[in-house]
Amino acid sequence: MESFLPPQVLLLGPGPSPVPEPVLAAMARPTLGHLDPRFVAMMDEIKELLRATFGTANALTLPISAPGSAGMEAAFVNLVEPGDTVIVGRNGVFGERMRENVVRIGATAVVVDAPWGEPIDPQQVEEALRGHPGAKAVAFVHAETSTGACSDAATICRLAREHGALAIVDAVTSLAGLPVEADAWGADAIYSGSQKCLSAPPGLAPISFSARAVEVLSARRTPVQSWFLDMSLVTRYWSQGQGGGRSYHHTAPVNLLYALHEALLLVHEEGLDAAWRRHAEAHRHLCDGLERLGLELAVDARWRLPQLNVVRIPDGVDDADLRRRLLLEHGIEIGAGLGALAGRVWRIGLMGHGARIENVERLLGALAELLDRRLV
Amino acid sequence: MESFLPPQVLLLGPGPSPVPEPVLAAMARPTLGHLDPRFVAMMDEIKELLRATFGTANALTLPISAPGSAGMEAAFVNLVEPGDTVIVGRNGVFGERMRENVVRIGATAVVVDAPWGEPIDPQQVEEALRGHPGAKAVAFVHAETSTGACSDAATICRLAREHGALAIVDAVTSLAGLPVEADAWGADAIYSGSQKCLSAPPGLAPISFSARAVEVLSARRTPVQSWFLDMSLVTRYWSQGQGGGRSYHHTAPVNLLYALHEALLLVHEEGLDAAWRRHAEAHRHLCDGLERLGLELAVDARWRLPQLNVVRIPDGVDDADLRRRLLLEHGIEIGAGLGALAGRVWRIGLMGHGARIENVERLLGALAELLDRRLV
Repeated sequence: MESFLPPQVLLLGPGPSPVPEPVLAAMARPTLGHLDPRFVAMMDEIKELLRATFGTANALTLPISAPGSAGMEAAFVNLVEPGDTVIVGRNGVFGERMRENVVRIGATAVVVDAPWGEPIDPQQVEEALRGHPGAKAVAFVHAETSTGACSDAATICRLAREHGALAIVDAVTSLAGLPVEADAWGADAIYSGSQKCLSAPPGLAPISFSARAVEVLSARRTPVQSWFLDMSLVTRYWSQGQGGGRSYHHTAPVNLLYALHEALLLVHEEGLDAAWRRHAEAHRHLCDGLERLGLELAVDARWRLPQLNVVRIPDGVDDADLRRRLLLEHGIEIGAGLGALAGRVWRIGLMGHGARIENVERLLGALAELLDRRLV
Repeated sequence: MESFLPPQVLLLGPGPSPVPEPVLAAMARPTLGHLDPRFVAMMDEIKELLRATFGTANALTLPISAPGSAGMEAAFVNLVEPGDTVIVGRNGVFGERMRENVVRIGATAVVVDAPWGEPIDPQQVEEALRGHPGAKAVAFVHAETSTGACSDAATICRLAREHGALAIVDAVTSLAGLPVEADAWGADAIYSGSQKCLSAPPGLAPISFSARAVEVLSARRTPVQSWFLDMSLVTRYWSQGQGGGRSYHHTAPVNLLYALHEALLLVHEEGLDAAWRRHAEAHRHLCDGLERLGLELAVDARWRLPQLNVVRIPDGVDDADLRRRLLLEHGIEIGAGLGALAGRVWRIGLMGHGARIENVERLLGALAELLDRRLV
């Protein structure tokens, strides 16, 4: 066996997204101890940068030392207890995963379904809240990575609050790709992944809990079922204790955190507004080009995500073969359909560093060649 | 805020250990998609390298996408169900953490205590097994990072098997630093961390399950409480499905896995025997030097770990101040005592790439200066 030398691939799938050179370079810097005061100071900067990214002043804002799926699990296992009822919006794979999380806690999930490719209907969420007074939380995915649909986070969070329920928001694909305003929405737990519009390598899950969520956490009747994800323990490492020090919980993924720090600096150097605009522009360019290729987007323009574009596979085209040739002959990765959409759609991600006109051009050219179509 | 430029520190604490340059360089290579066929081929190599490292032929051997603590949790949540009884050896912080894991599952922990700094007594484990027929598992820490004591893994695993219980072994600090023989011992779940004697950056937890453990997993009455750590799902991504493909579970930490691959290559390039010898030699050199400085090791030589050396802090020496000066003036990190040993001992790690005579010399010189003692 030999050292692994990965080829350079343009990552236009559902994540990971292209990681810029300065972020890769940051990750390769010398490993420090996870309690080194210089490292701890950088952790504080990460928390501050994450707050600015989530649009929140929440004290309890930090990256979980594991991928986005663990961020989702952290939100649920900390806020939901056995016997609780949670209203779960399900309009794709990740809404179903939320339901799975609720059930594995021993809580009851009340599912509000929407067709794949459409947003969660706030009116149905309100009906579910009315039908289940005392529901502990409403959970939904802001930007469904499996379908490319954007739900109305502000409205759903408001409804949750009006009915005394917590709002749990999956912002894995949305964060830094389109406006995320945790505090303005009134989100109580909101999480993301490092490898989407933040353009850091996969492996970290930024998460933020509101003051209201922290109260709920403190008032739990049962211990959090996961020791690793128990925020009351995690936070003793990520913030100063009463004695002024930090307590060891687990060994933080030091080098990945260097990368996240650098990626967040790049996001804020550009500015969130500018990043959102760049995503929107690359998206428009892609939509135009796909139309010129005679390809069809599967999601209505009213709730279409800029960073995750779901395209119908034309009749007679071999899904796997085309993606393989795109990857191996053209060095471009796009994503397959998930679940019910497998074999029927492609998922084209324009995330973070990848959301650039030149990448769109390169993809359109390659698709034209592989599909033997012209950009008319 | 600016890019974070960590200083070069010689990591001689309880982990992370020094990460060699080729491993850092591997991590900075371009990110691939987690389903890219080239990446998937590398994943297969990692599994093979991990099997060789654990001394096992177990099919279900892979790195969990999170730190060692999550590896521990994966072992427990997959094999233990509510109502089960688990015998837990506790001779330090990590044995107590095992007990926490058992309790959070809703299972009963029967604790076999040993004084900190001493190994678990196999005879007491046997008594506990006799006293609790039908116990689901025996769990213990091979190399207690908090105390520096090594337990007799072969004997405890054998006793578990003789009584029809599974053996769960924490090899976080032992793996690649001293002989670990999962199959010869009969370990049913054994896990480690990337950042100890493997000298990869922190963030991954290699784990291996025996065929017997896989049977237990398949026969569960209840779902695994953690979606993220459910091995029946994780394994669909890490091995070929019936259709020949891999199923998406979570986004793997691609770049960290490059680093683990490279670190494992280095381990096997040197050879496990040679690595164990190197750890033993560096340890002997350290023990000699500490004695010449008039410092005392806290653990009896019979069960002293080579890679984690617990040293009594001499009277009148300010623990925190000395460690701070060692770090900031000499660029060397050593670890503080944990739990009951806080303020009373230092923990000197000679792990992986760090286990070298020249590092020991440098530490001894710095300690002599800071303690104003001579190496006599």
